[in-house]
Amino acid sequence: MSDRIADALDHRDVNRDLDVFATDPLAGSGLPLWLPAGAAIRDELQRLAKDIAHEDGCVDVYTPVLGKRALFERSGHWAKFSPDMFPPMRLGDDELVLRPANCPHHALVYSAAQHSYRELPIRLNELAPMFRAERSGVISGLQRVRQINLDDTHVFCRPDQIADEVARALRAALRAQRILGLPIDYVRLSLRDDSSSWLGSDEQWQASQQALRDAALGVLAVEEIPLVEALGEAAFYGPKLDLQVHGGRGHEETIATVQLDFNQPERFDLTFQAADGSSQRVVMIHRGTVGAMERVVASLLERYQGRLPLWLAPVQIAVLPVSEAHDVAARAAIDALRARRLRAELQLDGSLGARIRDARRQRASLIAVIGDREASAGLVQVTDGADRNRRTVPLAELVEKAAAAHRHREPVRW
Amino acid sequence: MSDRIADALDHRDVNRDLDVFATDPLAGSGLPLWLPAGAAIRDELQRLAKDIAHEDGCVDVYTPVLGKRALFERSGHWAKFSPDMFPPMRLGDDELVLRPANCPHHALVYSAAQHSYRELPIRLNELAPMFRAERSGVISGLQRVRQINLDDTHVFCRPDQIADEVARALRAALRAQRILGLPIDYVRLSLRDDSSSWLGSDEQWQASQQALRDAALGVLAVEEIPLVEALGEAAFYGPKLDLQVHGGRGHEETIATVQLDFNQPERFDLTFQAADGSSQRVVMIHRGTVGAMERVVASLLERYQGRLPLWLAPVQIAVLPVSEAHDVAARAAIDALRARRLRAELQLDGSLGARIRDARRQRASLIAVIGDREASAGLVQVTDGADRNRRTVPLAELVEKAAAAHRHREPVRW
Repeated sequence: MSDRIADALDHRDVNRDLDVFATDPLAGSGLPLWLPAGAAIRDELQRLAKDIAHEDGCVDVYTPVLGKRALFERSGHWAKFSPDMFPPMRLGDDELVLRPANCPHHALVYSAAQHSYRELPIRLNELAPMFRAERSGVISGLQRVRQINLDDTHVFCRPDQIADEVARALRAALRAQRILGLPIDYVRLSLRDDSSSWLGSDEQWQASQQALRDAALGVLAVEEIPLVEALGEAAFYGPKLDLQVHGGRGHEETIATVQLDFNQPERFDLTFQAADGSSQRVVMIHRGTVGAMERVVASLLERYQGRLPLWLAPVQIAVLPVSEAHDVAARAAIDALRARRLRAELQLDGSLGARIRDARRQRASLIAVIGDREASAGLVQVTDGADRNRRTVPLAELVEKAAAAHRHREPVRW
Repeated sequence: MSDRIADALDHRDVNRDLDVFATDPLAGSGLPLWLPAGAAIRDELQRLAKDIAHEDGCVDVYTPVLGKRALFERSGHWAKFSPDMFPPMRLGDDELVLRPANCPHHALVYSAAQHSYRELPIRLNELAPMFRAERSGVISGLQRVRQINLDDTHVFCRPDQIADEVARALRAALRAQRILGLPIDYVRLSLRDDSSSWLGSDEQWQASQQALRDAALGVLAVEEIPLVEALGEAAFYGPKLDLQVHGGRGHEETIATVQLDFNQPERFDLTFQAADGSSQRVVMIHRGTVGAMERVVASLLERYQGRLPLWLAPVQIAVLPVSEAHDVAARAAIDALRARRLRAELQLDGSLGARIRDARRQRASLIAVIGDREASAGLVQVTDGADRNRRTVPLAELVEKAAAAHRHREPVRW
């Protein structure tokens, strides 16, 4: 295992074979371009994030990438984070700034209408771009970037719903990471310390830290995942749960979080009408499942060393006719696979050996070779990308099995 | 017709009933928040845009919303458009600016690799945010905004592929607008005039204008849509086809374009390797189908006065139990509808009459009422949102018909 980690490629090395992203001096550092192979991976991840969010009762919103400076003064980000924020832009009388986080906009969505206690919880989900003014020196591939595209959800709930919502958020995040094959090593309960750099009252902190601890212990006991407490690691606005993994190269990272926030609801005066008609303060929970697109793709490339599960692979099936005589059969295979929305690539040029090497370099999940025997009988000879498990099957079986693996986000079951 | 138009509601008026978007002084003017109902519409439109792009052989990319100032100096936008651009932000040694268009980033994606003549055309699609520094005074609802989320495709092709690609782009845009129910009145061929404010040589302009004219005439003859030429209406980098519609309130607008561009390929030195091994200049075509999310939603709300086709409607089916005795049957109906990913809303509170009025106000496509007779026999009484065509059908039939209408983007066929 330690050998594997020592030999393991960085995601930027894997990228040289897969063409997931490119950087360009004119675009600027920390602003990668997602090439078609990367966009295919990202689309699958966005779909997973949306599926999980919808199953969990979240609704979608779309909010702009910038807001008035006053928005972030109100949220407290300006006081706390302005060194990490992009500088404001003046437009007439407005000062606009790229957002350092998405919660202020979601708070505005919540406050766009009155809410009764019976409507809660309201869970707003967005694949939302946010921005960090990283210095050029620390920027690296997809791991540290200036535009972060985050699967981000904000739950607005009553105080009596906190435990349920935290447990729900944690289960959703664990489920997402299981599907991705990035199993969580442990969950960190990040608490405040005794310094004075935290927003909000002592009472709020105590109550929220206890609520998170109780909910996490309940979920994690079932999942057999340890909970580790970390003083001083909280967000400035509240305590949080961090889902920790060890990357393909051995280093630890946070892949998703669940954060309780008593602070933003006060700053934005977010309320609901209680059963007795009184106006009560709502609680906000920040939650993510799949995480930031940039970071999760970097993690996946390193974890799998580019050989992604079929549902995520940019090239799911490479189709290789042995010679020109088999081109017609190969094109029919491509059409049948693409009709089921599978990412199938036809490779025509060069020797069969060179094309197999090329498909392996691109980490095609499956390589389907069509020669005389296959073409005449509607068959394909299939190997996985590592050239193991060679089998000859009817084309229709390949199509069905690959489509099922894609749909269920599971390995092909022959 | 003229009466209908005079009485017709502005999209901001329709929005009061549907809660598609909200504005907030803290977010800033021209930066609307898409509420859940609006996000549901936009998701459908984004899916349509992607489906059409993929059927047309486009591949997805994702690019950042900002680039270095030098990127837009290179593209020519800085010289031509800087008064309409957001001011640059300084970050260390970099000057970064929100993009006024997406083509420069797509040019960088193209130039990230070498391309052979056999790979072309390459068609890059993105639902891409771009920015315009509109003055507060001219901003209006979703119609004039500062962040524009555009269904944008850039085709990179050989000169001999121009006619095919323009025809393909035009057919795709016409198809999208037919599906949306925003039929094109005429197509405008926007040409340069004799002034000097155009980038590129006279020869390039002449050739490109003729190529667009020929391709458009071929497609439009079949579609029986007129082509009208307009001198001086071209983009600064080349001639274009504008698809013109008359909105629900009678005014004319451009809903999609196909633009030829000989200029960006020169500025970014975009080439392909020809069959003889020489390096040749590629041609760029800007194309859109569904258009900008903001503008198309404004158009749709006005065109349909909020009563969107079922596949686009935020509330596809409102389910109303007559009394508490029918709540169980109503919840079963909701579950069955949502299991097919239909947007079904359960309305429990208030008199049946009030709930029907509420569902109509929200422009629910279908209203399903469940009383004694229906609950006992697995039936639902269905009317459309205008309370026409009342019919009692089995729940399973409602589910199947609504799901088919959604999937095929067609009216319900009973």
